[in-house]
Amino acid sequence: MAHVNENYNKLPGNYLFQTIAKKVADYEKKTDRQVIRLGIGDVTKPLAPAIIEALHKAVDDMATAETFHGYGPEQGYDFLRHAIIKGDYETRGVSLDTDEVFIGDGAKTDVACIQEIFGHNLTFAIADPVYPVYLDSNVMFGHTGAFNEKTGRYDGVVYLPCTPENGFKATPPTEPVDIVYLCNPSNPTGTAMSREDLQEWVDYAHRNKVILIYDSAYEAYITENDVPHSIFEIDGAKEVAIELRSFSKNAGFTGTRCSYVVVPKACVAYTHDGIKTPLNPMWNRRQCTFFNGTPYIIQRAAEAYYSEEGQKQCRADIAYYMENARIIRDGLTDAGYTVYGALNSPYAWVQTPKGMKSWDFFDLLLEQAGVVTTPGSGFGPHGEGYMRLTAFGSRENTVEAVDRIKKLRF
Amino acid sequence: MAHVNENYNKLPGNYLFQTIAKKVADYEKKTDRQVIRLGIGDVTKPLAPAIIEALHKAVDDMATAETFHGYGPEQGYDFLRHAIIKGDYETRGVSLDTDEVFIGDGAKTDVACIQEIFGHNLTFAIADPVYPVYLDSNVMFGHTGAFNEKTGRYDGVVYLPCTPENGFKATPPTEPVDIVYLCNPSNPTGTAMSREDLQEWVDYAHRNKVILIYDSAYEAYITENDVPHSIFEIDGAKEVAIELRSFSKNAGFTGTRCSYVVVPKACVAYTHDGIKTPLNPMWNRRQCTFFNGTPYIIQRAAEAYYSEEGQKQCRADIAYYMENARIIRDGLTDAGYTVYGALNSPYAWVQTPKGMKSWDFFDLLLEQAGVVTTPGSGFGPHGEGYMRLTAFGSRENTVEAVDRIKKLRF
Repeated sequence: MAHVNENYNKLPGNYLFQTIAKKVADYEKKTDRQVIRLGIGDVTKPLAPAIIEALHKAVDDMATAETFHGYGPEQGYDFLRHAIIKGDYETRGVSLDTDEVFIGDGAKTDVACIQEIFGHNLTFAIADPVYPVYLDSNVMFGHTGAFNEKTGRYDGVVYLPCTPENGFKATPPTEPVDIVYLCNPSNPTGTAMSREDLQEWVDYAHRNKVILIYDSAYEAYITENDVPHSIFEIDGAKEVAIELRSFSKNAGFTGTRCSYVVVPKACVAYTHDGIKTPLNPMWNRRQCTFFNGTPYIIQRAAEAYYSEEGQKQCRADIAYYMENARIIRDGLTDAGYTVYGALNSPYAWVQTPKGMKSWDFFDLLLEQAGVVTTPGSGFGPHGEGYMRLTAFGSRENTVEAVDRIKKLRF
Repeated sequence: MAHVNENYNKLPGNYLFQTIAKKVADYEKKTDRQVIRLGIGDVTKPLAPAIIEALHKAVDDMATAETFHGYGPEQGYDFLRHAIIKGDYETRGVSLDTDEVFIGDGAKTDVACIQEIFGHNLTFAIADPVYPVYLDSNVMFGHTGAFNEKTGRYDGVVYLPCTPENGFKATPPTEPVDIVYLCNPSNPTGTAMSREDLQEWVDYAHRNKVILIYDSAYEAYITENDVPHSIFEIDGAKEVAIELRSFSKNAGFTGTRCSYVVVPKACVAYTHDGIKTPLNPMWNRRQCTFFNGTPYIIQRAAEAYYSEEGQKQCRADIAYYMENARIIRDGLTDAGYTVYGALNSPYAWVQTPKGMKSWDFFDLLLEQAGVVTTPGSGFGPHGEGYMRLTAFGSRENTVEAVDRIKKLRF
């Protein structure tokens, strides 16, 4: 008799973005006003010309038997792994072997599945607020207790509060944990940990034999010098950290789908008998059994991101989005709001006025300004009282949204 | 302290295809003879022109803001879901709702991950021999006991022997199980179950509240009328079966990556309290949390498979491969071998001569004929004494390989 995975019942019924979509649809039915979406972190600029050119070329490769590509390596093609090492790591003084880089189909997949290589009695820590997939994926694998309606938290999960008092920077827990998810720069707060902050995390991980799952999907938006782009810029990180990256935000691949995971060969966890076990061959085995590689043509597109033209074009897009971020930050600050983030990130983290609840302010912004945001409470209990605004809209819409919010009287 | 998933230690150290690759590389070092690969089930013909055209068009869509596609639905675009329902199901009298079809990035991913929606104390049955991913993925999730070197089997797994005596058709187990993996037509034996065989399976599943995980990746190769293309052609299947399909073998997508899973809304499993729970919303939730959709351009390519031109071109490729299958089957039968399969499948399942072990005959074929095959024992204990040959080579290589095998004297 087939039984269902009852951990799924622990998840609250409504997904954040589903609820938002319904509210927006209801509002659009009763208004003629153009709704401006600064909610979901999806890019709006098309793929860079260098990437389009690489895609067409790769498609042509698939058209003749001589240049056709069937099954590729599950870990990804060497041409892309080499481009990543050269472009993202050697430039920052980090050396990696080819087989330490695993190409994936998206950071969401990678970060949700990385838990599989750890023991089933996993205890983990997450920042609060944070990107919901770290938590939800672990709930579904049975790595948490029940959801406590009163606290808005799952039993058995270690939450690391991120508040104005600590600069929205998670600090190492005192409770024993096995792994810690770190997102830097942070989704949703848009704030970033410095070299010094991360050194503290790496040292903590060494002392406690903890693995850091380091999500740097937004590294391309870093503008400040003391914010590392990779955890491997930190001394000793290779022994205790796995890094996850995405092409979604730096190259606009939200609908094109490519990512990578770096599992250094030095990175180890332990059997219950205390035997040191390298994680690199485990993730390799996981990928070989559960995945058949990212499409050849998509890997060629990702490779083009690292070309001279690709870099120039993609950096111009990032600069465009970051100018939007500045417009949001400066505009709302001018209007009297307290705004965090948006300096090393495309996200602004805006305190609600007059102590309003996130969802109440969401409704107000939608109904009175026609602007869609994301309620901070959707990212964890400590997100209550905040909104996330994204810089991924067009310039025109961003300016108009800020203008509308500025004119609000309530 | 981070612990590793020790279930990985249960897996034998060498993967089948890794061992083969090493043997072939060693052989190639010492010979000038051209090695012919009839081992791995990878296609060799390029993508069909209609698919290439759709890819170029979709790439162009990504080049301008107006037609750019960012995050798509995790479940896949409706244009592809509709094309699948119309092309693969309505033509066979099966009606499905759009939200019963989930687009994936490959049947390997889908079939390895589908176990996640079932309870952790999962007991499953597999055919023996069979495609190794069903078993390995469950081993890694802790759904089996240890590997028993003596029997070549994992404790706690129900193996369904497929032998000449039962026409290589798995029959329902007498032991209690939760789910059964069925591959029809079978990889590796190339044989197929009929409508009557499948009705027996569906009736068994109803009686025992078992879910059938039905892998029909090779359905496009079916030539006989009484072999169903979908499990849903069988009365009552929607309540007890999940179907998995791939574009790898029907449209040559081994390096392009697209697949789909059908989870009918009528399909249910149970909580431990015996509450009927539909699996469709569970797989939906799983995909929404662990996956961000198949690339837009790849979904457009898959859609083109269903166009009039796409169908004509892909069916011509399948006919080409099936003529290779005929050449292998007839040629080796003529040479005195006992050959199964290759009628509804691109795979021929060849009995080794004189009771030789699979690996011994593999070595002989490699060393004396320069032909790479797959040892049947790699697919399970009952594969011992067989070889899998694939029809995915070029005509020239297939004819040459058969010729070389015919000339063998030993």
